[in-house]
Amino acid sequence: MSNDHRYSKSERLAVYRAIAERRDMRHFRPDPVDPTVLKHLLAAAHQAPSVGLMQPWRFIHIKDHDLRQKLALLVDEERLHTAEALGKRSNQFMEMKVEGIRECGELFVAALSDKREQHIFGRRTMPEMDLASVACAIQNMWLAARAEGLGMGWVSLFDPVQLARLLNMPPGSKPVAIICLGHVDAFYPAPMLKLNGWADERPLCELVFQNTWNSTEL
Amino acid sequence: MSNDHRYSKSERLAVYRAIAERRDMRHFRPDPVDPTVLKHLLAAAHQAPSVGLMQPWRFIHIKDHDLRQKLALLVDEERLHTAEALGKRSNQFMEMKVEGIRECGELFVAALSDKREQHIFGRRTMPEMDLASVACAIQNMWLAARAEGLGMGWVSLFDPVQLARLLNMPPGSKPVAIICLGHVDAFYPAPMLKLNGWADERPLCELVFQNTWNSTEL
Repeated sequence: MSNDHRYSKSERLAVYRAIAERRDMRHFRPDPVDPTVLKHLLAAAHQAPSVGLMQPWRFIHIKDHDLRQKLALLVDEERLHTAEALGKRSNQFMEMKVEGIRECGELFVAALSDKREQHIFGRRTMPEMDLASVACAIQNMWLAARAEGLGMGWVSLFDPVQLARLLNMPPGSKPVAIICLGHVDAFYPAPMLKLNGWADERPLCELVFQNTWNSTEL
Repeated sequence: MSNDHRYSKSERLAVYRAIAERRDMRHFRPDPVDPTVLKHLLAAAHQAPSVGLMQPWRFIHIKDHDLRQKLALLVDEERLHTAEALGKRSNQFMEMKVEGIRECGELFVAALSDKREQHIFGRRTMPEMDLASVACAIQNMWLAARAEGLGMGWVSLFDPVQLARLLNMPPGSKPVAIICLGHVDAFYPAPMLKLNGWADERPLCELVFQNTWNSTEL
């Protein structure tokens, strides 16, 4: 069967390359990102799918130095709480670099908008689809950043209530990511948590079933 | 500042092209997808970022004809409930084609795994980051599908408890998407909900702030 909509081989390889080489980065160089490139990355995010076309994503560019420090302290605090919650693995966790907030060239917070309860299409039984839409937007931005040679990291080590307060966010909205973005010396050859021995990856074949849970497909 | 990690111009354009041309499709041709291409799409999904490297995504390939019909009926049912909940916009909603479950070449259910409570890294205050990871995986698959010339649609019009029962899913797991995938005659030139007059898109400049909520950046 012919498929006229298929991209050229080199285009397909470029898409697969970005998907394979994208990494959750924690190590950055401090130089800023070209503003034109930044706009392209945000435009890529903005082209994400959204449930009922509600476009629930909001992006706050953190340009103020003091505010950046406050965000970093908030994450330091949650890092300690997380270490405590991890029990036996606390030391191993504390030895890892888990974010690059102080040094990355550009810092963003991605958030869910307020007034989301007005959107019912695709959300009556699955209200959390708004978060899924924001995640798709962030993934678009991540892949575009990788193609631009820029590293990106998604930090979720924070108290969302306190972060919302720091950014004057209205009731009903919610921060979902602190996004570190910027130039990097090198991209990790594999996920950092794998390189650090935090977790092993499971092969795809264990996660794809046929017709019913835990049946084998691949 | 030089950037050695930047892709070639043609590669960058290919990534941006997939992001721009990806659509949430509801119209499909019934012919199946090449199994090798299917594996590439699932491998793309599997390369998504995941919080704490927990890889919470599971994919169930619906190959059984009767099971596909049951899924379609489940969605038909929720479509009526949603129409009712939409009040004044009920008729407009019912006139739209909102899924292609019966006709698409390949059908999947994407789900959150069970036993997620074991994963604390990045989730102590933000447990919903597991859904964000699954959404990133689906977005990877979507972009790869577009590059392969294949349409994909994310359907969230279902009762997750009933769908979990149909697929024998264990306690703690949760379906998050019925994924329609397959060949299409044409990709929509813009989001279908925009073409159908359901919703207007807001420009990016209204959704990007600087330092504090509702401040202007762009």
